[in-house]
Amino acid sequence: MRTMDRRDFTASFLGALGTLALPVHLPWQTGLRVDGSRISAHLALLSELGKNPQGGISRVAYSEADHQARELAMGWMREARLDPTVDAAGNIVGRRAGRDPSLKPLVIGSHIDSVPEGGNYDGQVGSAGAIEVARTLDAGGVTLRHPLEVMIFQNEEGGTIGSHAIAAGLTTEELDRVAQGGKTIREGIRFLDGDPDRIDSARRTKGDIAGYVELHIEQGGILDERKIRIGIVEGIVGIRHWEVTIEGFANHAGTTPMNGRKDALLVAAWCVEAVNRIVRSVPGRQVGTVGKLRVEPGAYNVIPGRVVFGVELRDLDDTKVTGLWRRIEAECRRHAEAAGTRFTASENLAIMPALTDPRFRRAISDAARKLGLSTLSLPSGAGHDAQEMSRLGPMGMIFVPSVGGISHSPKEFTRPEDIENGANVLLQVLLDLDGA
Amino acid sequence: MRTMDRRDFTASFLGALGTLALPVHLPWQTGLRVDGSRISAHLALLSELGKNPQGGISRVAYSEADHQARELAMGWMREARLDPTVDAAGNIVGRRAGRDPSLKPLVIGSHIDSVPEGGNYDGQVGSAGAIEVARTLDAGGVTLRHPLEVMIFQNEEGGTIGSHAIAAGLTTEELDRVAQGGKTIREGIRFLDGDPDRIDSARRTKGDIAGYVELHIEQGGILDERKIRIGIVEGIVGIRHWEVTIEGFANHAGTTPMNGRKDALLVAAWCVEAVNRIVRSVPGRQVGTVGKLRVEPGAYNVIPGRVVFGVELRDLDDTKVTGLWRRIEAECRRHAEAAGTRFTASENLAIMPALTDPRFRRAISDAARKLGLSTLSLPSGAGHDAQEMSRLGPMGMIFVPSVGGISHSPKEFTRPEDIENGANVLLQVLLDLDGA
Repeated sequence: MRTMDRRDFTASFLGALGTLALPVHLPWQTGLRVDGSRISAHLALLSELGKNPQGGISRVAYSEADHQARELAMGWMREARLDPTVDAAGNIVGRRAGRDPSLKPLVIGSHIDSVPEGGNYDGQVGSAGAIEVARTLDAGGVTLRHPLEVMIFQNEEGGTIGSHAIAAGLTTEELDRVAQGGKTIREGIRFLDGDPDRIDSARRTKGDIAGYVELHIEQGGILDERKIRIGIVEGIVGIRHWEVTIEGFANHAGTTPMNGRKDALLVAAWCVEAVNRIVRSVPGRQVGTVGKLRVEPGAYNVIPGRVVFGVELRDLDDTKVTGLWRRIEAECRRHAEAAGTRFTASENLAIMPALTDPRFRRAISDAARKLGLSTLSLPSGAGHDAQEMSRLGPMGMIFVPSVGGISHSPKEFTRPEDIENGANVLLQVLLDLDGA
Repeated sequence: MRTMDRRDFTASFLGALGTLALPVHLPWQTGLRVDGSRISAHLALLSELGKNPQGGISRVAYSEADHQARELAMGWMREARLDPTVDAAGNIVGRRAGRDPSLKPLVIGSHIDSVPEGGNYDGQVGSAGAIEVARTLDAGGVTLRHPLEVMIFQNEEGGTIGSHAIAAGLTTEELDRVAQGGKTIREGIRFLDGDPDRIDSARRTKGDIAGYVELHIEQGGILDERKIRIGIVEGIVGIRHWEVTIEGFANHAGTTPMNGRKDALLVAAWCVEAVNRIVRSVPGRQVGTVGKLRVEPGAYNVIPGRVVFGVELRDLDDTKVTGLWRRIEAECRRHAEAAGTRFTASENLAIMPALTDPRFRRAISDAARKLGLSTLSLPSGAGHDAQEMSRLGPMGMIFVPSVGGISHSPKEFTRPEDIENGANVLLQVLLDLDGA
């Protein structure tokens, strides 16, 4: 007689069920709950790495703090028996076998890098939540039909680089781009123990995954304002970045008369105003931002000779974004020429909008209802790794409220109970999709 | 019998003339000429220190290159038997005794630090020219009635710091201010072998000098445009600097709707436009510049939470500058409040306008006429150490043309013959003032 513990028993029992292709909503599974206090404790530990003096974190991808946070997450993955490895693109991938070897994996995850002077929730809630869901399954002795993968993607904030490497690959040009912290992406991947020379080995193709679900804070204020607990994401806006350069002429600020100047900053100021005005000139939820701007040479007494700034546009409709950019470009070019300066722009990021899968949205809605949580369908104004992963298979996203809608800021905050709710919804959605 | 060389003879002869208070325009003096090729050679050597890849120099005060350039200049002073020392404020002072110990020194000089990405002429022409004038006197065996001092002032580009220390002293607050290169002024002075703890020993008071004359490139385009060889400076404009901070709120650029933003850069852009418009709104030669601007945190996907920028205003009439600033401040404050942001401004430089002495202007005019050089009277839009030195005694300035009016730029250029002309005018003016 072979001894069989509860986990083995469950596995074999569910395995049998799986082959019958029945929905698997067994009471001891739908009754499973994550440990919210453990997620909180993990988030508290993460908040120490790259901590700002004024609160929040500056844990830019490829920094020492980023590396440390990943080590921490891999430790938790090991505790959840996820057997984490780092793929060639520098993403952390934790795996748990499923009962049916013919099935493609269900993937959950997020990121743990941050913007400069960012907060403690963006990406981290989804990462800690996904690991906790895997741990809860393990502790509950539940083995899914599908293999489960928990992914922590590298450099989300620099343009979903890690998930892009998985879903679309990285070109040599992209690998050589300098990321926020000063390293090239190639150097960054190496720093994170990836292998840029074998980058293609990290890549997957359409159909390689059964689906992807990401838990994330809303980062906007809609759920918080309306006191809704769970957001069902309709789709993720496209994001495009242009780097604009205005070349004027650096000259003496005291001796060059006002009408003899080629002031690059004056032109850039007109452009910043134009971006804002043009984006607001049409109805809709599109947004446009000039978030970075550098003045050269940058002294009180020198007329700016060169200004480089970044324009970001986002919307669910890429045609609209293209139209807005054309207007911005035309007006800035006009301003530049009128002031005797030169306008150039290069697009350096183009992430297409991504819609979520209706089946995934229904699973989120069902899970929330069972857990007694109110829901609202809404688009995501922020980009996410989920956007990249939707190239590989159906995708869904669960939002939890951000207090005051504040994000990418040390003041970012999501209540512990909302994080716990979100992770429980993720767990139930996973069980639902696994059984479907 | 005491042997007497030509120099001793001249000295005793002129000494006798001096006591008779006769004008001293002896033929072998007015016939003295500087060595233009030596000035050119010295300027070429200076252009190697802090050289930019694209030409010109970045020899910001207190940098290694600044220190090296000063060592070079001190070597040339020694060759001119000027016996250079560094005063407690970090200025280089070369001395040559006069025939009449009761007289105060005539002072000539300029500076050799530069703005970031500056050129090879601003300050350097006057410094090399003044040393060459002293060397020409020495080689010609001419000892003036007055003691002669050649000064190379430290950190002119950061707000005439060295000459200000001599003419007005530096407060503890000023010493602790961080200069362009990152060092505090105190650290910078120490780096240049000055002694900030004894800073007051460098200070002089009104009447301590018989006069100050500075040779400088125009830095504007008036002389070059009109093909005039020598500019007779009427006065130096006042310069005032304000540091403006706009405090908005750093938030996620994707999830924060356009009408829910507190975008510090948008407000700063309005302010940059306002500075330009307001300065141009009244007749006159006043100038206003926003030359530096820093965005925080500075990423594509974060709404700027904080922008710090510098406003500079210049005019010969300080009342006009004050009036313009009041209008700029009021409009920027209005913009900031309308956008839910906070405006603060602090003045961190105020140099009052300085008029040149009529006697000195006449001496320049006479010297140029004797040398067959055309002249034009004009104001200086640039600030100079001469402005500070005018607190101590009568002051004059000689301008030579800047090709195309370009300055504070690697493209700054003044023709060797114009530099030689300027130095010859300086020499003759010195002889004139000494004899007067």
